[in-house]
Amino acid sequence: MPTPVHILNGPNLNLLGEREPATYGATTLEEIRLACQKRAAAHGFGLEFLQSNHEGGLIDAVHRARRDSAGLIINPAGFTSTSIALLDALLTVETPIVEVHLTNLHHRETWRHHSFVSKAASVVIMGAGPHGYLLAIDHLASLRTVE
Amino acid sequence: MPTPVHILNGPNLNLLGEREPATYGATTLEEIRLACQKRAAAHGFGLEFLQSNHEGGLIDAVHRARRDSAGLIINPAGFTSTSIALLDALLTVETPIVEVHLTNLHHRETWRHHSFVSKAASVVIMGAGPHGYLLAIDHLASLRTVE
Amino acid sequence: MPTPVHILNGPNLNLLGEREPATYGATTLEEIRLACQKRAAAHGFGLEFLQSNHEGGLIDAVHRARRDSAGLIINPAGFTSTSIALLDALLTVETPIVEVHLTNLHHRETWRHHSFVSKAASVVIMGAGPHGYLLAIDHLASLRTVE
Amino acid sequence: MPTPVHILNGPNLNLLGEREPATYGATTLEEIRLACQKRAAAHGFGLEFLQSNHEGGLIDAVHRARRDSAGLIINPAGFTSTSIALLDALLTVETPIVEVHLTNLHHRETWRHHSFVSKAASVVIMGAGPHGYLLAIDHLASLRTVE
Amino acid sequence: MPTPVHILNGPNLNLLGEREPATYGATTLEEIRLACQKRAAAHGFGLEFLQSNHEGGLIDAVHRARRDSAGLIINPAGFTSTSIALLDALLTVETPIVEVHLTNLHHRETWRHHSFVSKAASVVIMGAGPHGYLLAIDHLASLRTVE
Amino acid sequence: MPTPVHILNGPNLNLLGEREPATYGATTLEEIRLACQKRAAAHGFGLEFLQSNHEGGLIDAVHRARRDSAGLIINPAGFTSTSIALLDALLTVETPIVEVHLTNLHHRETWRHHSFVSKAASVVIMGAGPHGYLLAIDHLASLRTVE
Amino acid sequence: MPTPVHILNGPNLNLLGEREPATYGATTLEEIRLACQKRAAAHGFGLEFLQSNHEGGLIDAVHRARRDSAGLIINPAGFTSTSIALLDALLTVETPIVEVHLTNLHHRETWRHHSFVSKAASVVIMGAGPHGYLLAIDHLASLRTVE
Amino acid sequence: MPTPVHILNGPNLNLLGEREPATYGATTLEEIRLACQKRAAAHGFGLEFLQSNHEGGLIDAVHRARRDSAGLIINPAGFTSTSIALLDALLTVETPIVEVHLTNLHHRETWRHHSFVSKAASVVIMGAGPHGYLLAIDHLASLRTVE
Amino acid sequence: MPTPVHILNGPNLNLLGEREPATYGATTLEEIRLACQKRAAAHGFGLEFLQSNHEGGLIDAVHRARRDSAGLIINPAGFTSTSIALLDALLTVETPIVEVHLTNLHHRETWRHHSFVSKAASVVIMGAGPHGYLLAIDHLASLRTVE
Amino acid sequence: MPTPVHILNGPNLNLLGEREPATYGATTLEEIRLACQKRAAAHGFGLEFLQSNHEGGLIDAVHRARRDSAGLIINPAGFTSTSIALLDALLTVETPIVEVHLTNLHHRETWRHHSFVSKAASVVIMGAGPHGYLLAIDHLASLRTVE
Amino acid sequence: MPTPVHILNGPNLNLLGEREPATYGATTLEEIRLACQKRAAAHGFGLEFLQSNHEGGLIDAVHRARRDSAGLIINPAGFTSTSIALLDALLTVETPIVEVHLTNLHHRETWRHHSFVSKAASVVIMGAGPHGYLLAIDHLASLRTVE
Amino acid sequence: MPTPVHILNGPNLNLLGEREPATYGATTLEEIRLACQKRAAAHGFGLEFLQSNHEGGLIDAVHRARRDSAGLIINPAGFTSTSIALLDALLTVETPIVEVHLTNLHHRETWRHHSFVSKAASVVIMGAGPHGYLLAIDHLASLRTVE
Repeated sequence: MPTPVHILNGPNLNLLGEREPATYGATTLEEIRLACQKRAAAHGFGLEFLQSNHEGGLIDAVHRARRDSAGLIINPAGFTSTSIALLDALLTVETPIVEVHLTNLHHRETWRHHSFVSKAASVVIMGAGPHGYLLAIDHLASLRTVE
Repeated sequence: MPTPVHILNGPNLNLLGEREPATYGATTLEEIRLACQKRAAAHGFGLEFLQSNHEGGLIDAVHRARRDSAGLIINPAGFTSTSIALLDALLTVETPIVEVHLTNLHHRETWRHHSFVSKAASVVIMGAGPHGYLLAIDHLASLRTVE
Repeated sequence: MPTPVHILNGPNLNLLGEREPATYGATTLEEIRLACQKRAAAHGFGLEFLQSNHEGGLIDAVHRARRDSAGLIINPAGFTSTSIALLDALLTVETPIVEVHLTNLHHRETWRHHSFVSKAASVVIMGAGPHGYLLAIDHLASLRTVE
Repeated sequence: MPTPVHILNGPNLNLLGEREPATYGATTLEEIRLACQKRAAAHGFGLEFLQSNHEGGLIDAVHRARRDSAGLIINPAGFTSTSIALLDALLTVETPIVEVHLTNLHHRETWRHHSFVSKAASVVIMGAGPHGYLLAIDHLASLRTVE
Repeated sequence: MPTPVHILNGPNLNLLGEREPATYGATTLEEIRLACQKRAAAHGFGLEFLQSNHEGGLIDAVHRARRDSAGLIINPAGFTSTSIALLDALLTVETPIVEVHLTNLHHRETWRHHSFVSKAASVVIMGAGPHGYLLAIDHLASLRTVE
Repeated sequence: MPTPVHILNGPNLNLLGEREPATYGATTLEEIRLACQKRAAAHGFGLEFLQSNHEGGLIDAVHRARRDSAGLIINPAGFTSTSIALLDALLTVETPIVEVHLTNLHHRETWRHHSFVSKAASVVIMGAGPHGYLLAIDHLASLRTVE
Repeated sequence: MPTPVHILNGPNLNLLGEREPATYGATTLEEIRLACQKRAAAHGFGLEFLQSNHEGGLIDAVHRARRDSAGLIINPAGFTSTSIALLDALLTVETPIVEVHLTNLHHRETWRHHSFVSKAASVVIMGAGPHGYLLAIDHLASLRTVE
Repeated sequence: MPTPVHILNGPNLNLLGEREPATYGATTLEEIRLACQKRAAAHGFGLEFLQSNHEGGLIDAVHRARRDSAGLIINPAGFTSTSIALLDALLTVETPIVEVHLTNLHHRETWRHHSFVSKAASVVIMGAGPHGYLLAIDHLASLRTVE
Repeated sequence: MPTPVHILNGPNLNLLGEREPATYGATTLEEIRLACQKRAAAHGFGLEFLQSNHEGGLIDAVHRARRDSAGLIINPAGFTSTSIALLDALLTVETPIVEVHLTNLHHRETWRHHSFVSKAASVVIMGAGPHGYLLAIDHLASLRTVE
Repeated sequence: MPTPVHILNGPNLNLLGEREPATYGATTLEEIRLACQKRAAAHGFGLEFLQSNHEGGLIDAVHRARRDSAGLIINPAGFTSTSIALLDALLTVETPIVEVHLTNLHHRETWRHHSFVSKAASVVIMGAGPHGYLLAIDHLASLRTVE
Repeated sequence: MPTPVHILNGPNLNLLGEREPATYGATTLEEIRLACQKRAAAHGFGLEFLQSNHEGGLIDAVHRARRDSAGLIINPAGFTSTSIALLDALLTVETPIVEVHLTNLHHRETWRHHSFVSKAASVVIMGAGPHGYLLAIDHLASLRTVE
Repeated sequence: MPTPVHILNGPNLNLLGEREPATYGATTLEEIRLACQKRAAAHGFGLEFLQSNHEGGLIDAVHRARRDSAGLIINPAGFTSTSIALLDALLTVETPIVEVHLTNLHHRETWRHHSFVSKAASVVIMGAGPHGYLLAIDHLASLRTVE
């Protein structure tokens, strides 16, 4: 069985495609999951894909992904700037972490610029829309090989 | 069936009437629910009334109230100043939002003055005690008519 | 003679209906006065209604309303964030004070968020437009009765 | 005719004795005026004594006291921390300025600690209650003599 | 009758020529008024010229100049950094606004650098002394023509 | 049945012994529970011991421990600096509260220094490692006796 | 034996008259002591007068003056803005405290404006030079009598 | 040969007319140079006119304009808020300096409000568009004559 | 001829591979250029690749890349947090901009966290090392196609 | 001879029992010394116990306790937030340091929350009153044994 | 007798060579004294060399060195950032002052960067280790001669 | 050939002797170069001496001096507080770095106090005028020998 990539999605991302499409685009989270599955498979990875509106639920999921993972990709959404508990969970993870945001946070309100999650992530990709998830998977794949 | 007003109550409000009565008064949350039901009915509204100590639970509830609602009334309590995730949920709501606080937050500690919820609410009512919920319902009613 | 409600309006509110209607709406201050008069009478109150562009004029008016009043409703407008002198006047008032703003200040510039007046007001109502004045009168009425 | 001492009193001081007596004491402004008159006379000074709730009124009064005065004593009350216009007026005064506060501002809210007026005053006396006015007059008298 | 330029002067400017001449120069406000009148006439404008130490008086004057004016020139003096009420008045003006300061505020104390008025003014001219008023009139004239 | 001491443990403490042992030591949470049970029994106390990654779960647990408790010991972990909702829950508790941290927060990042929980706790013990829990139990015992 | 007034002088005041006379004047501390002795005697007080460059020495002296004193006058000089230990000592004093500064601190560097001592002092007198000590003694005397 | 006015233009101004015309207008820098030349000649001045995207290039140009100049007009553009080196160069200049900005910086992002250049400039003109350059030349001319 | 991707590298990147390899890795800039060339060609793009230690040199290069480009990739290095002039240049660019950093800036000193460049970039990729450049090229390619 | 525990007490603690008993309790420092002696002896430790109002005296005492000590317990009182010199002394100590405060500093003024001493202490115990000293001794004892 | 150079050393420097040698080096203060004596003699100076852990002791020593000194060299150590009293003492000194720090404070914690002493010192030398004292003596010698 | 000392001088230092002589003295940069050459030769060093107004020019020069140098002495002038790019260049240097400023920056404006360069320099010498360069050379020489 292929080693899975774990992708965690934070609060309100279940509404993607429907919520403020001018800001977040028309792609749904299910469409993103399918594109990720395809891209992961192309690299020989499996995929665990989860969304939760519950901080504790995401922390539990991070704990499950601490090991035996090809890497953790997280879009922390509304928890980005506020959750030290989520950061602490990510600090226990032993595989690479990639933080993904659909939009470039620096184009938005000041209080969205700060990220606790970035202190644990090795890589940050912002503003590439749904394509950012695929770049993150590509990056995890690149870590196994000499480019 | 009448269009419901959705009323959401944040953490610790289940203890109302019992917790720090000098600050929050002796009325219980159940008594508030009953008064709201009566006032909503008087305007021809139904009522959905919920309390949760879980941020994720409130976000889920906000998602359910995004449409087919006469308006969303929220007392975010301890999440007022800290939850960007709750704000993001409220930003997806298409009906009017009224933020209610039992006390005037400006009489309390500085770090309670800031409200993320206010960025999504169209109306804020603070300090009117349980009566504030009724004023909020009245305001939602007024939006249907010329005063 | 019925006990009056005192309603004080701060600077530039004389231009209401004419000034930045996109922000403040098309209702004039005279129309608000008439609606308040009607609502006050319905509760058995009289009405004293005043607008001034002069901080000192508002302070003088607050002094006159300190007693023998069913309550003081104030829309401090441009003095909200700057006038400690007006706050000091309000701190001498012995009847309930309701602070009303037509717009939700939290949707506007940061330097409009702070309110000195809120330190003296027991209730704050923001964002309900002209209807906020009527809610304020209703609230003063509720203080005489068991809801 | 004796050279007058000018004493200016800022907003809400007309309510002295009546307003928050726990903070400001029971002496009225008229009683203070009489005590000042007696003390001024004892030093051979006349007295000009004024109270206004209007910033512009105080500025006009400062202009009248710029010259031919034994000194200007000002209790700026609520304008202390906010009025640069009053400071600018005081900066044009050619006689000594004594700033008097009934209470020690450092025992009160933080935003009352800062004083624009202090930048123009040569002497500051805080917390001595009504007696502070008399100390101020004594100090102006001391400037004529070798102690 | 020629369209007037409105020139408003804030607190303490009545003392110009007499107050701190090392900072503000020896020209009196009357001399400035005469030079402005001459310059306005040269461009075919009338002139309304006013000075007040009262914030409310300036707000009233701004209201009178909202329309049928070739432009509003304002030296807000001590109200520059403190008066949101004056800013709100200026935001209702439909003709161009030029903010003039005799001195370059950036050479003075830090708390004089900030200007609320600048948020409403389209043009700011600082440090040109009395000549700044004439440049402001010239600028209003230039708006009618192709330079 | 002996009155219980309630011990609540915040997010990620379930990983104790395994997570960043250089920072948090090699003792597991189960080992701490056993040591606490022994120490509580030695003082004649029972023990309720809980860990949750869910802020709402901890708040619910605080509500259950409000009364009939020998005291509440809480290690809020990642919620220390961010959860006003947890603080509000603790403010309703009528027995003594001891806040325990395994490490001295002042040796860590600045944003970990602030504690909302400390506003409700009567005692704080930091940096004593697992032994801190035992000191906390000893302290609750000392409150019944004259030392 | 008459009840003494205690006067404490902080660091570097032993150099008075000699140190930066442009700022602090030409009067020596010995001359101030003599003038104070005379003024205290005129009110029927004795005098304890001390100067120390040692924070601990001043704290010891405050402890000696906690009782059986007509009042404590302190010029904390360089310890004004920095010594919480001195503040704590003053908070134990049961007689009135008057804080005296030769110069008006608000005319000097920003970091001299803050005073910990002011939190314990009931009265503050700044900028009156050596005469400030005499005003302070007069004020202590006034507390025994009806003015 | 006539004494020249020196006009220096900072980074990206070479794109004027083409770059963000909604903000900066459609006039090109070459058109501004021609208008300046005409206006300078009308006053009997020559003109040196330069644009550079290089901070060091502007500093070199300031050094060349330190003397034998009728005045230095500078639009520092993107170096306004960041270049202490450019400020230091301007502080060596012995002729009058006028700082010109096409737009009113106070209408733009906060971090554009601060100007190091203003500490060296005697006059600042903002928001008058290309006409601001001509006002600046007029002001330099006025310094030779009695207005 | 294929449309080029423009890649700009800021100060000190010429030392890559040699400078602080523990932080920046052992790959040289020339090796990165070659990998980019290969990747660009694979997508049918040409490549313009430049490094400069001169802010003005980078601004000039941005001007040349404003049009007829498949996109601009910039590693602003030491100019990231300080150059408003570079930001202004980027704001004139009409093709997509991707900001790349070899390291995750949030793991470094606080004053490196802020990026002016991010205000103009649509996408930010940090911490992926030299691979980040390739992800950036891939992203530009993705903009032409449906993923 | 038993290895001593060193206990150092900062300024004003000599007044314990007498000073503000509502805040600090009625136990005297001598009573605390006796309880500590008994508890230390129970663990087989000696005791060195010192109080000083002099920062330098405490630093000298820290130097004497750097070695041959079972641990240093310090209640820095008024020096907690201000003394970098005391911190520097503590940084030279080779035995464990426990910082004790009678009250929970987080319940007091903001400027008492910060502790320089905490940067050198391994353990902090606040709010346990005199019992905190005994917990500190117990903790030093625990370091010799497996709990 | 040769004019002495005065060298004052602040708190904890008596432990030099022994305390944190990784930070402060292995040279003792006595070795520094001997090297300074030799260097001073080479320039024809005497030497007064003192260390104290007492702020008051250092202030007393500064007073003794105010005159008849070739210059004052001070390593304020832990008093650098906190002692306004020491600064005030140094401001009374009439000979040149050189501030010396063994380490470059800017490599250490932020709260060590600020120096009150620097406001009085004409020269600052940081980071040169014990050699910094000798450079300071050389500099004092250079002031007597033309370099 | 002797190993050179590299001395780099930042913007505007070419005007030394001519620019603000009251602040910077009358010595020219050429005179400093000659004195440095003599002093370097006395220690057996060569000298590379450069001044540039271009940040990029200084960075290029730092790159050339990274190796085969007896040490780098830099007076960053106006780039001191603003250039992270220059700091990054200095962080690549493998020989000792001495930062020299002619004046004591702490006597000047607050925004000149901060130095990015100090983070890379091992030694800082401020306020010694041109003599500071010679002290810096002496210090580099001392690193080869036992003092």
